[in-house]
Amino acid sequence: MNKVCVIGAGSTRYGKLSEGIVELAVNASREAIKSAGIEVRDVQYAFISNVFGVADKQVHLAPVIMSDLGIANVPGLTVESACGSGSIAFREAYANVAAGFYDVVLVVGVEKVTHTGTARSTTLFSYCSDFFYEGGNGVSFPGLFASMARAYMHKYNASEEDLALVAVKNHEHGLLNPKAHLRKRITVGDVLESPPVASPLKLLDCCPFSDGASAVILASEEYAKSHGLEYVEVIGSGRGASPATLQDREDITTIPSTRAAAQQAFKQARIEPKDVDFAEVHDCFTIAEIVDIEDLGFFPKGKGVEAVRQGITRLGGELPINPSGGLKSKGHPIGATGVGQVVEVYEQLLGRAGERQVKGAEIALTHNFGATGASCAVHIFRRA
Amino acid sequence: MNKVCVIGAGSTRYGKLSEGIVELAVNASREAIKSAGIEVRDVQYAFISNVFGVADKQVHLAPVIMSDLGIANVPGLTVESACGSGSIAFREAYANVAAGFYDVVLVVGVEKVTHTGTARSTTLFSYCSDFFYEGGNGVSFPGLFASMARAYMHKYNASEEDLALVAVKNHEHGLLNPKAHLRKRITVGDVLESPPVASPLKLLDCCPFSDGASAVILASEEYAKSHGLEYVEVIGSGRGASPATLQDREDITTIPSTRAAAQQAFKQARIEPKDVDFAEVHDCFTIAEIVDIEDLGFFPKGKGVEAVRQGITRLGGELPINPSGGLKSKGHPIGATGVGQVVEVYEQLLGRAGERQVKGAEIALTHNFGATGASCAVHIFRRA
Repeated sequence: MNKVCVIGAGSTRYGKLSEGIVELAVNASREAIKSAGIEVRDVQYAFISNVFGVADKQVHLAPVIMSDLGIANVPGLTVESACGSGSIAFREAYANVAAGFYDVVLVVGVEKVTHTGTARSTTLFSYCSDFFYEGGNGVSFPGLFASMARAYMHKYNASEEDLALVAVKNHEHGLLNPKAHLRKRITVGDVLESPPVASPLKLLDCCPFSDGASAVILASEEYAKSHGLEYVEVIGSGRGASPATLQDREDITTIPSTRAAAQQAFKQARIEPKDVDFAEVHDCFTIAEIVDIEDLGFFPKGKGVEAVRQGITRLGGELPINPSGGLKSKGHPIGATGVGQVVEVYEQLLGRAGERQVKGAEIALTHNFGATGASCAVHIFRRA
Repeated sequence: MNKVCVIGAGSTRYGKLSEGIVELAVNASREAIKSAGIEVRDVQYAFISNVFGVADKQVHLAPVIMSDLGIANVPGLTVESACGSGSIAFREAYANVAAGFYDVVLVVGVEKVTHTGTARSTTLFSYCSDFFYEGGNGVSFPGLFASMARAYMHKYNASEEDLALVAVKNHEHGLLNPKAHLRKRITVGDVLESPPVASPLKLLDCCPFSDGASAVILASEEYAKSHGLEYVEVIGSGRGASPATLQDREDITTIPSTRAAAQQAFKQARIEPKDVDFAEVHDCFTIAEIVDIEDLGFFPKGKGVEAVRQGITRLGGELPINPSGGLKSKGHPIGATGVGQVVEVYEQLLGRAGERQVKGAEIALTHNFGATGASCAVHIFRRA
C-alpha cells in the first residue's frame, strides 16, 4: 500500500455565485493544480463529487471538466453520497493512489443549486433522506436535525443558547476566511431571535444553501518526494454507515457512521483523538457539530456542549473546530463541502491559513457525512 | 494486488417496470447475494451505479438500499458516469478489492425513468452530453449518434441495411433472454420502415428507455477459494476518456475512450482480441456496436460492418456480440447496463445462460460507455 499525500488544493468562493457548475469546477481545479506546482497534463485520473448536477443541467461531469481543462484523455467519474460526497470521493481517490492505480489524482467537488431557489433546493435535498419515510412525508433536514437537537437537549440538559454558541463561533471563524459564504459576526441573541425553521432550530442554527467548488490533488508520497513537492500526508481513512432513517436508530443523539469511520481512521493513523490539533467537522446545523465532536472521541457523550461553553473549540482554544467557518459560515455547496475541508487542512498544515491559522498544527481531522449521517467518511492528515 | 473475481450475479427484468428504484436495486442485490452462496451480512462495501435517482426522488441510495437489505452498517456510495456508470462502478469496486480494502463488495446498478415519459427522459439524458454545446442546442443522443452513423456510412461505404442487421441480430439474441425488455423478432424491413428518429437512425436502430437493476458480487480470489465458491476471474480492467463533445474529436467514426480502455484491459489480461470468445458491448444505437467492435480490436476499422453482414457476430458465429440481446433488445436502464453486462458474462462463463449459451466460452469482454463515449470502461473475464 503506497503512502498517499495531498500536494495541492484550491477553492472558489462559496456563496450565491453566478458561474455555472462546469466553470466553478474548472476554476477550483486549476487553482489546485497550480498550487501543487504540477502541470495540468500530470493529472492521471479524476473524481468529481457532485449531487445535483441536474439542477444546472449537467451530469457526467468528468469528461466536460477534463475537456475544459485541456486533458480530455483523462478518465474520471462522479461520486455521490449526499452531503458526504466530497469526503467519500476523496476516500475513493485515496484508495486508487494507495493501491498504485494512479500517481496523481484530482478530486473536485462542486455544487450549483442556489439559482433554483430555497424551496426547490429544499425539495432536491430531501431526496437525500430516505424519501419514502422522511422527505416524502414533509420531514426535510431541518426537521430531522431538530429531532436530534430535542433529544440531545433533553438527554444532556443542553439549551438553545448552547446550540447558538456553535453558530457564533463558526461565524467568528468564517469572518477570517475570505472565501466563506456568510462573513458576518453574530451574537447568541441574534441566533435566538432569528426566525424558527424547525424548533428548536432557528435560521442561524442552519448552514446556508451555497454554490461553490473545491479541489485537491492527491499523489503517492513517492511522486511528491521525487518531484520535490510540498505536501500533507494522509495517515488515516475511514468509512461508516448508519440506518438511512432516524426512526431506525436506537439513539438519535449519536451518529453510528461517525463512530465507525473515526474508529477506522484513528486505528490506521495509530493516534488518539487527543493527538489531533484541529478538526473540520460536519456542522450542517449547530446540533450536528456538538454530536460530531463527541462521536469523534474528542469529548465524552454529553460533554461536547460543555466544551463549546468553555471555548475549547474556538480558534485559540485547546481544540479548534471548524477554523474555516464550517458549513455554518463558510457555506455548504454539498458536493464541494468534504473536499473543501481537505483544502482547509492543506492550507492550515502548510501554515498558509492567514488570520485563521491554527498555530503549530501538525495533525488534523476531517469529518463529513451525508443526510443525517447515513454515510460518513473521516480522514486524518499530518504535516510532512 | 489481489486477484479479483465475480462470485455472484442477479438482475431484475429490464423494461417499463412498476417497482420503485429502491425495490429494484434490493431485488437484484438479493438475487446476486443468493447466487453467490454467501449471507447478506458478508457484504462489506457497496457501489451503487445510478444516474437519475432524482427521477424517482431518491439519491444517496447506498444507505437506503443497505438498510432495506438489513445491513445498515455497510458503507457505500453512488458512482455516476452517464450510461457508462455500471462498468465504472464495477471498475472502482475492482480497485477496492484488488487493493485489499475489502474482500466482498456488492455492485448494484439501477435506473428508474420510464414513468417520466419519453420526452422527460430524453431531456434528462441530454444532461449527460456536454449540455452547453450539445443537449442545450437540441442535439440529443439520437442526433449525435446519427452524425456518427452518417460519417461511418460515408467513410466505409456502409448502408442503412447494414445498421439494421445489428438490430435484427440483437433482437434474435434478446428473444432467448427471459429478462430482456424487447423480446420481439424483427426483420431488416421492419427496421428500415420504422419511424425516423434522427436520420439515418430509425426507431428500431435505437435502444429503448428501460427501468431495471443488475447486481454482482466481487470478492478476492482468496476469499472465493477459501469459501469454496464458484467464480469468474477478472483478468483485465481499463478506463478511457474522449473529448466530451463530438465537435472536439478528429474522427467521429471511432471512439478514443474505447481504444484506450481496451488497450489497458488487454495489456493487463495478457491476451489479444482474438482470444475473446464473446463480448457484451455498448449498442445504444446500431451504429455504436459497429464502431465498438472495431475500436475493441476485434475487426480492423471499416471492417466491423462486414463482420456483421457475414453473421460472425451472431450467436453461433465466430465471435458472438451481445448474446444477452444488448442494450438494443435486452434494454438500457442506464445505471444498470454496465453491471448487467457482467451478469451476462458470469452466467455465460458458468454455463448458465440457457438457450443463449455461447458454447465453450472461456474468455469474455464487457464494454460500456457514457454519452457518445466520453467515458468508458472495458473488463475482461476468464472462466476459473
